Amino acid sequence: MTTYDYIREGDAIYRKSFAIIRQEADLSPFTAEQADIAIRMIHACGLVEAAEHFRFSPDFVSKARGALHAGKPIFCDAEMVAHGITRARLPADNQVICTLRDSRTIELAKTIGNTRSAAALDLWDEMEGALVAIGNAPTALFRLLEMLDAGAPRPAAIIGMPVGFVGAAESKEALMETSLGIPYAVVRGRMGGSAMTAAAINALARAGL
Amino acid sequence: MTTYDYIREGDAIYRKSFAIIRQEADLSPFTAEQADIAIRMIHACGLVEAAEHFRFSPDFVSKARGALHAGKPIFCDAEMVAHGITRARLPADNQVICTLRDSRTIELAKTIGNTRSAAALDLWDEMEGALVAIGNAPTALFRLLEMLDAGAPRPAAIIGMPVGFVGAAESKEALMETSLGIPYAVVRGRMGGSAMTAAAINALARAGL
Repeated sequence: MTTYDYIREGDAIYRKSFAIIRQEADLSPFTAEQADIAIRMIHACGLVEAAEHFRFSPDFVSKARGALHAGKPIFCDAEMVAHGITRARLPADNQVICTLRDSRTIELAKTIGNTRSAAALDLWDEMEGALVAIGNAPTALFRLLEMLDAGAPRPAAIIGMPVGFVGAAESKEALMETSLGIPYAVVRGRMGGSAMTAAAINALARAGL
Repeated sequence: MTTYDYIREGDAIYRKSFAIIRQEADLSPFTAEQADIAIRMIHACGLVEAAEHFRFSPDFVSKARGALHAGKPIFCDAEMVAHGITRARLPADNQVICTLRDSRTIELAKTIGNTRSAAALDLWDEMEGALVAIGNAPTALFRLLEMLDAGAPRPAAIIGMPVGFVGAAESKEALMETSLGIPYAVVRGRMGGSAMTAAAINALARAGL
């Protein structure tokens, strides 16, 4: 039987991966805490150059961690984000909520004239002080900004990392311009997605790498 | 209330996204069928340049589609891959199987001296003629190659798209060198991941974009 020469121990793979990323990526714009999150996001996409598009507002890490430690829920726009979160890492057995497949979402989307991803946000109760993670749909991030502007309960922090070619870059620029004082983390431009978003949450869940 | 100027209709967003990708990406190395899959993979990562790393063996699309139409299961190495598959698109209500969280996997990993992601494959029954999708762990792809070399049942096609800095590039090169005649799709190098893998499956599930 052919066997290949590769590392078979999970922790060793992580350590080596993070060491390579530290060596190759430009992490100089980040604080030490932000860098830990950036490293896990780079790890999720396989591209050290992605870091140049990462932006963290100064109090993002402390506010997002505070929400998790206070037992607040994590609201996600996509099932893939929700299923990428390592539940065992979460500090307070936090609820992970995705309402995209809620039976009411299709009807709501028709009512508000928007995508299902955007309409799903109308079912987010208890957003006050929560962690919000938009990792897929630009329409969900635009809808979030509209709801907040209209007086919706304010989350503790927003992860804005939708991916794609239509609206993704624009929705993230809008978040940075008009976050209403809510701390955010974004990947500017077209990149982003559920894996980077889940990686950011997993990094927030426990300090250190 | 602030409203933003953005497209709120899902199909229109898809159409515009795919048109942008066709305009910007170099799809010349691909057949028309491969290009449809490549476009959805690009859509999932937000980076047209990713296409230069895509490799499809000539009969990959026909064999993978054949497996799906024959009602064969889809085996995934990661929950995020499994949850990124649009079930309603699948042509034969195909089973989507991920054994990573099976209670036996931890013990198996100790027994074989490998990661849980690799050990999870030992629980894949009915791999004969199935579609196998490795979208996260290089160790799972290496393990698959070892199992196949040792005489495991042969899947119809292999999607080999693990992401990362340790073993990802190497495991995909090994697949291309030693696929034992099984058709494959890979993203060479460090890039890949659950979103691109699920996008490839969703593209295979139904011809056209």
